[in-house]
Amino acid sequence: MDAVKIIGAPVSPYVRKILAILRLKDVPFEIDPIVPFFGDDDFSVLSPLRRIPLLIDGDVVIADSSVIAQYLEETRPEPSILPANPADRAQARWLEEYADTRMGDVFIWRCFNAVVVNPSVWGGERDLNAFQEALAGPVAEIMDYLESVAPKDGYLFSTIGLADISIAVMFRNMRYCRWTPDASRWPKTARWLATVEENSALSAANEWADTLVKTPVADHRVRARQLGVPISERTMFDLVPRRGPMTPAS
Amino acid sequence: MDAVKIIGAPVSPYVRKILAILRLKDVPFEIDPIVPFFGDDDFSVLSPLRRIPLLIDGDVVIADSSVIAQYLEETRPEPSILPANPADRAQARWLEEYADTRMGDVFIWRCFNAVVVNPSVWGGERDLNAFQEALAGPVAEIMDYLESVAPKDGYLFSTIGLADISIAVMFRNMRYCRWTPDASRWPKTARWLATVEENSALSAANEWADTLVKTPVADHRVRARQLGVPISERTMFDLVPRRGPMTPAS
Repeated sequence: MDAVKIIGAPVSPYVRKILAILRLKDVPFEIDPIVPFFGDDDFSVLSPLRRIPLLIDGDVVIADSSVIAQYLEETRPEPSILPANPADRAQARWLEEYADTRMGDVFIWRCFNAVVVNPSVWGGERDLNAFQEALAGPVAEIMDYLESVAPKDGYLFSTIGLADISIAVMFRNMRYCRWTPDASRWPKTARWLATVEENSALSAANEWADTLVKTPVADHRVRARQLGVPISERTMFDLVPRRGPMTPAS
Repeated sequence: MDAVKIIGAPVSPYVRKILAILRLKDVPFEIDPIVPFFGDDDFSVLSPLRRIPLLIDGDVVIADSSVIAQYLEETRPEPSILPANPADRAQARWLEEYADTRMGDVFIWRCFNAVVVNPSVWGGERDLNAFQEALAGPVAEIMDYLESVAPKDGYLFSTIGLADISIAVMFRNMRYCRWTPDASRWPKTARWLATVEENSALSAANEWADTLVKTPVADHRVRARQLGVPISERTMFDLVPRRGPMTPAS
């Protein structure tokens, strides 16, 4: 089977979600690691909301990580990333939606953006007040909710799946803000997260992101190639810096 | 089969999306027509992001209209609301996501909120300037995008489905702002929309919403019952007005 192409930098949790699913399903891939604030009008045509990741599979182009995940599940069903029972499948999809929108909004657009993206990409101030406010308010609320749904041990539904992955990838970007959940306050969630992060499906993409988050955007392709990331021969897009609309979900 | 319960007022396009799918699949239902800004803490427990609709099917409770739609497709597969081919299914799901998030953000949270909800529910100003700005900017952009994907005639994929319904329901709330798309500027989209709205799956919920949008929230249950809406015997929630977080998608 030909490698699929993923457009989008592994620093994005939405990109890492898809990379983990590809690893789990043993689908070969190559990456064009653009960040969504860069990229020309050709990118807008393929991704109308300028979201990453974008999946290219032969002549099929798909935007939105949830839609991509579902497409991969339908075209590469083994191993499945969804439980068998419709009610459990609904719970898994709900938790994916919760991660993509609510956790994305708070963990990425409020925290990661204030602490990492704004200073390092746009040269703005590192806003630690905004970060502390988020930690005391919406982050704590999210943690309380996750603690109410977290499994006692292992994964949510016997084997690792869409919901485990979608939630775990969000925490990695919080670690880049030097925050990890307090295991005495949210013990089930902390244990669950550790279990998911140890899974080999996530480990390579996590390591790539750990380095790339400290690498200037212009050097991403070169650095990624040094790390052994399967980088596409050349980018499909001219990398035109532009402060496009920053959509809260992807 | 027992009737499923839908929590949420038909004025919400996300509720009407699910009502249309239930009609199409001939699933009996009853409605508890709460609006998301009302409802007590019991509602927050069932719907963590205070979104409507909420589906209750026996002891299964599901939040989020996309997750509900997928659950209905899996538990009541006929007639299907998705095309057979995985690439087409991805396009249908993408357009649902586009409707839920981008059109929801602009049509509902910018336009419908400024022109209808804020004055009628909260007693605020009707902000026609904000509305005109939205029409000239993001609404026109959305229309141009829809025109690029609209079918030449009929539905997107031979029979009416998830994407047709998800997009059409958004336009009904724009009509409540006294705006309909210019058929000379966006002819394919206007024709497509007319075709979908004529489908009997949508007509009853549209008629209910047309009346309820002019009815004070406190009178919704009584008025809905007069209209023949299958209203649940009593509400599951105390109707406590509260200005909760207004999430842009549902």
